[in-house]
Amino acid sequence: MNFDRILKVFVPKEYAFFPMFEEGGRVLVSGTESLIKLSTAGTADMMDQYITEIKKFEKEGDVVANRIFAQLNKSFITPFDREDIHTLATRIDDVLDNINTAAQRIKLYKPKKLPQEVAEVAKILFQLGSLINKAMPELRHADKHRESIYRICEEIHELEKKADHYYSLGISALFENEKDIAELIKLKDILASLEKAVNKAEDVADTLRTLLIKMA
Amino acid sequence: MNFDRILKVFVPKEYAFFPMFEEGGRVLVSGTESLIKLSTAGTADMMDQYITEIKKFEKEGDVVANRIFAQLNKSFITPFDREDIHTLATRIDDVLDNINTAAQRIKLYKPKKLPQEVAEVAKILFQLGSLINKAMPELRHADKHRESIYRICEEIHELEKKADHYYSLGISALFENEKDIAELIKLKDILASLEKAVNKAEDVADTLRTLLIKMA
Amino acid sequence: MNFDRILKVFVPKEYAFFPMFEEGGRVLVSGTESLIKLSTAGTADMMDQYITEIKKFEKEGDVVANRIFAQLNKSFITPFDREDIHTLATRIDDVLDNINTAAQRIKLYKPKKLPQEVAEVAKILFQLGSLINKAMPELRHADKHRESIYRICEEIHELEKKADHYYSLGISALFENEKDIAELIKLKDILASLEKAVNKAEDVADTLRTLLIKMA
Repeated sequence: MNFDRILKVFVPKEYAFFPMFEEGGRVLVSGTESLIKLSTAGTADMMDQYITEIKKFEKEGDVVANRIFAQLNKSFITPFDREDIHTLATRIDDVLDNINTAAQRIKLYKPKKLPQEVAEVAKILFQLGSLINKAMPELRHADKHRESIYRICEEIHELEKKADHYYSLGISALFENEKDIAELIKLKDILASLEKAVNKAEDVADTLRTLLIKMA
Repeated sequence: MNFDRILKVFVPKEYAFFPMFEEGGRVLVSGTESLIKLSTAGTADMMDQYITEIKKFEKEGDVVANRIFAQLNKSFITPFDREDIHTLATRIDDVLDNINTAAQRIKLYKPKKLPQEVAEVAKILFQLGSLINKAMPELRHADKHRESIYRICEEIHELEKKADHYYSLGISALFENEKDIAELIKLKDILASLEKAVNKAEDVADTLRTLLIKMA
Repeated sequence: MNFDRILKVFVPKEYAFFPMFEEGGRVLVSGTESLIKLSTAGTADMMDQYITEIKKFEKEGDVVANRIFAQLNKSFITPFDREDIHTLATRIDDVLDNINTAAQRIKLYKPKKLPQEVAEVAKILFQLGSLINKAMPELRHADKHRESIYRICEEIHELEKKADHYYSLGISALFENEKDIAELIKLKDILASLEKAVNKAEDVADTLRTLLIKMA
C-alpha cells in the first residue's frame, strides 16, 4: 500500500536531501581528481599521498550516504520515492568505494607500472563524477531540468562506453603482452575495480532516469 | 507498520505483474539458448553473433525488471509482498546479467578453447531458465499451483548441485592440467561467472519458496 | 510516509526478533570456531570435516536470516526500523557466507599449504563473531546498553584493522615469494574471501551504530 502517493499531495516535501546529494557530488569530484593524480604520479611517495586522499574522500562519501539514510528515516514526505533516494545515495557512494578499492590494490600489489589505460579510465571517472555533480543541484527542480538531466544521463552512457573500450584494450594488452603473470594478475584486478566504478556511475544515471520517469 | 496487511483485504490486487514476470521468463530462456550455442560455436564469427544475442537479451531483461519496478511504484495492492516482487525481478535479471558477464569475458579474453564444463553448465543454465519460465505463469494462481511450484524449486536445487559438480570439475582440471597460466586465469573467470548465474537461479527458487511460505 | 513513527507510540513492539538474532550470533561463533580448526588442520580428512561443519553452520545462518525476514513480514511494529533489522540479519549472514566461500575454495583448489595469515585472520574472525554474539542479547535493551554496544563496535573496528594488516601481509608475501603462480592464484582467492567476511563483520558494527543513532 503506497501511502506516499496519497499524502504527497497534502504534506510539504522534505528538502533536506538536496544539499546532501550536492555534497555527495562534490566529494565524488574530489575523489576522482585524486584518482587522476594517482594514475600519473611520478613517485611512490606521491602515490601514497593520493591513495590516502582517496581513502579520506571515500570515508566522506560514506558519511554523506549515512546522513541521507538517517534523513530518510525521519522524513514523512520525500521529494522522490524513498527507495530511489536510497538507491541514488548508495550508488554514488559505490563509485567512490570502487575507486578506493582500486587505490588500495595499487598500494597493496605495488605493480611495477600502471598501464596507460588506468590513466584513461581515471580521466573518464573524473568526467563521470563531474556530470553526476552537475546533475545534483538540478534535482531541486527536476521537473524544470528534465531535459538537462536526461542529457547528463546520455553523456554518462557515452562515457561508460568509452571507458569500456579502454578497459578492454587494457585487458587485451595484458593477456597479449604481459609475460610476468604476477603483474598481469595485479593489473587485471586494478582495472577491474575501475571498470566497476564506471558501471556504478552508469547505475547512477539509470537511477536518475527512473526518478524522471516516475515524475512524468 | 505494515498497512498492506490491513488493506489487502479490501482493495483489488494488481495483476499487471504476471505478464511481466512471464516475459522475464521467456527472455531468460532465449538468453540461455544463446549461451548453449555460444558454448559450442565452431567459429569466432558465430561466437560473436551469440555474444551479441546474449547482450541483447540481457538488455531486454533489464527493461522487464525496470517495468516491474515502475509498476511496483504505482500499485496500491500487490499480489505478493512488495519486497518479494522486487527481489524476484532482481534475481531473474541477475541470472542473465551473469551470463552476459561470462559472454563478455569470452569476447574480451579470447580463450584458446572453452572446456567441456562450460558447455555442460550452459546446458544446465538453459534447464534452469526453462524451469523458472515454467513457474512464472503458475504465479497467477500460486495457491492452486503450490505443489507444482515447490517441485520446480526442488528441480532447480538439484540442477544447481549438478552445475556445481561441473564447475568444480572444471576448476580442478584447470589447476591440474592447464600449464598456460594466462589461459587458466581466463577460463577460471569465465567459469566463475557461469557459476554465479547458477547461484542466482537458485536464489530465484528461494524467493519463490518465500512467496509460498508467506501465502500459507 | 513513515507510519511507523506515528504508530510506534501506541502499539506494542514485536519481541520475537531478539531470540532469532541471538541464535544468529551463536551460529556465527560456531562457524568461526570451525574456521580456526580448518586453518590449522593437520590432515586432509580433518580439513574435509571442518569444511562440512562450516557449510552446515552457513545453512543454519540462512535459516535464521529467513526466519527474521518472515517475522518482519508479519510484524506490525518492529523494535528497530524494518530496513535496519533486514540489513542486520543480512550482514550477519554475509559473514558466514564468505567464510563458507573461503572453505569451499580450500576444498576445491586444494592449495599445497595455507599460509600463516589464513590462521591469523581466522582467529580474528572468531573474535569478531564472539563480539557480534555478545552484542545480540544487548539489543533487547539497546537503550540501556548503548555504551556497551558502542564499545563492541569500536572493538570490531580495531579487529578489522588488524585483519586488514594480516591480509595485506599475506597478499604481499604471495606476490613476493610464491613462485608457483597457480598457488598464488589459489591463496589470493582464499584470503580475499576471508577479508570479505571481515568487512561484512565491520558492516554489522556499522548497522548496530545506525540503530543506536536512530534511537538517540
